Amino acid sequence: MGGVFKLIILRHGESQWNHENKFCGWIDIPLSEKGKQEARYAGELIQRAGLSPDILYTSKLQRSIETGFIILKVLNRSWLDHIKTWRLNERHYGKLQGRDKHQVFMELGQNKEKFQYIRRNFRGLPPLVDFKDPSIDEKYLDILNKQILPKGESLAMVMDRLIPFFKYEILDNQMIQLNKTVLIVTHGSVVRSLIKYLNKVSDDDISKINVPTGVPLVFEMDDHGDLIKPYYYLDKEKAEEGIEKVKNEGLAKGPL
Amino acid sequence: MGGVFKLIILRHGESQWNHENKFCGWIDIPLSEKGKQEARYAGELIQRAGLSPDILYTSKLQRSIETGFIILKVLNRSWLDHIKTWRLNERHYGKLQGRDKHQVFMELGQNKEKFQYIRRNFRGLPPLVDFKDPSIDEKYLDILNKQILPKGESLAMVMDRLIPFFKYEILDNQMIQLNKTVLIVTHGSVVRSLIKYLNKVSDDDISKINVPTGVPLVFEMDDHGDLIKPYYYLDKEKAEEGIEKVKNEGLAKGPL
Repeated sequence: MGGVFKLIILRHGESQWNHENKFCGWIDIPLSEKGKQEARYAGELIQRAGLSPDILYTSKLQRSIETGFIILKVLNRSWLDHIKTWRLNERHYGKLQGRDKHQVFMELGQNKEKFQYIRRNFRGLPPLVDFKDPSIDEKYLDILNKQILPKGESLAMVMDRLIPFFKYEILDNQMIQLNKTVLIVTHGSVVRSLIKYLNKVSDDDISKINVPTGVPLVFEMDDHGDLIKPYYYLDKEKAEEGIEKVKNEGLAKGPL
Repeated sequence: MGGVFKLIILRHGESQWNHENKFCGWIDIPLSEKGKQEARYAGELIQRAGLSPDILYTSKLQRSIETGFIILKVLNRSWLDHIKTWRLNERHYGKLQGRDKHQVFMELGQNKEKFQYIRRNFRGLPPLVDFKDPSIDEKYLDILNKQILPKGESLAMVMDRLIPFFKYEILDNQMIQLNKTVLIVTHGSVVRSLIKYLNKVSDDDISKINVPTGVPLVFEMDDHGDLIKPYYYLDKEKAEEGIEKVKNEGLAKGPL
């Protein structure tokens, strides 16, 4: 008889720039007050579901780090190991980082197709930032080959740097080998990438999948890493509201 | 020419039980509101001193973990690796854990010498807890040999489990080998142990050294781990106030 291995994945709570409807990417914007509340609520959902993570992974961006910290505190599990890695960073949005989503939409002549191509197509690439020594951001000094640091990413490129790490380190090692329930607090594009990978979503269909902030998703796998049932949100209603909101970001003006 | 390696050591901010004047030890009591403020102030002191830690070590107890988290946030360095280890846990206070300090003093017939022997003598041992399977505390499940988990410790016993870890992992590896400025957020007895070790304080003299909550101490070492100048507090006045307070804990009734 095989085991059942559980993975809890979460997009961080709302950041100040989610609220202001800007492309954020690798820019290190803190959680808004609402984001902190969402994190506490996510912790309560995990607790009520009787789930008990054994290790926490986050990106190197503070909105995911603080969401993870708050969740562990709610769970009374602050002592868990907490691994922070750029492999779980948000998609790098190139020159769009810091730009207002609706303004970018206007500059594209209100062409919804072009706009959504960049945002949601599997190979849609934002305009790249010019080369500049990424070592100025101390967070990434531990990456010795600076050539692997992105200047802008499609979802396909996110998966290239994410999935080998996820499969080897988290799924095979922490979960199947060490039998740990893993909590990953990360970003919209990383959650979409993991859904695509674990649920075998096609390159075309992934463009239709949106992820709300702050609602934990649960995946249950067997010893081979195959899902034993469909993944599910711990608060379906809140997830559906959030998905609707994210889908339409940038099309209308101002915060949604 | 050799390098200069910096170590910042801090006793966590006030916990609810520091405030209530109880022996805390390994009991996992959260920070009080004042403790969180102290943590923010400690972060500001580190920033003003122009110090920039490269890695954070804490115990597995939330009062040290949260103090460390708050400091990194103030420093805008939430992304640093954060290692949590029982080697940096507070001294285990055996059967005194959870007891009111003044009440214990009264039970010892108000014998100040007996009371301070347990609290401050290098080999003073509290009454040990009875054997119980320590595996019930999930925090320590990763320690495979449960026999090494303490049932009560003298300062000498704290040093036995602390100093090899500190010397090998922190001083030799992170500092001298990897040239990192290390931030350790830990507990009163662990700070006293590190002062004893680094400053070569005798077994007798260590009983006179007290450590305030929330004030960072800085040690500067050469390539051999020897201090190149006396260690110093980043806020001397606040440190002296705090030391006076800690010294007299339990002798008078109620919170000091």
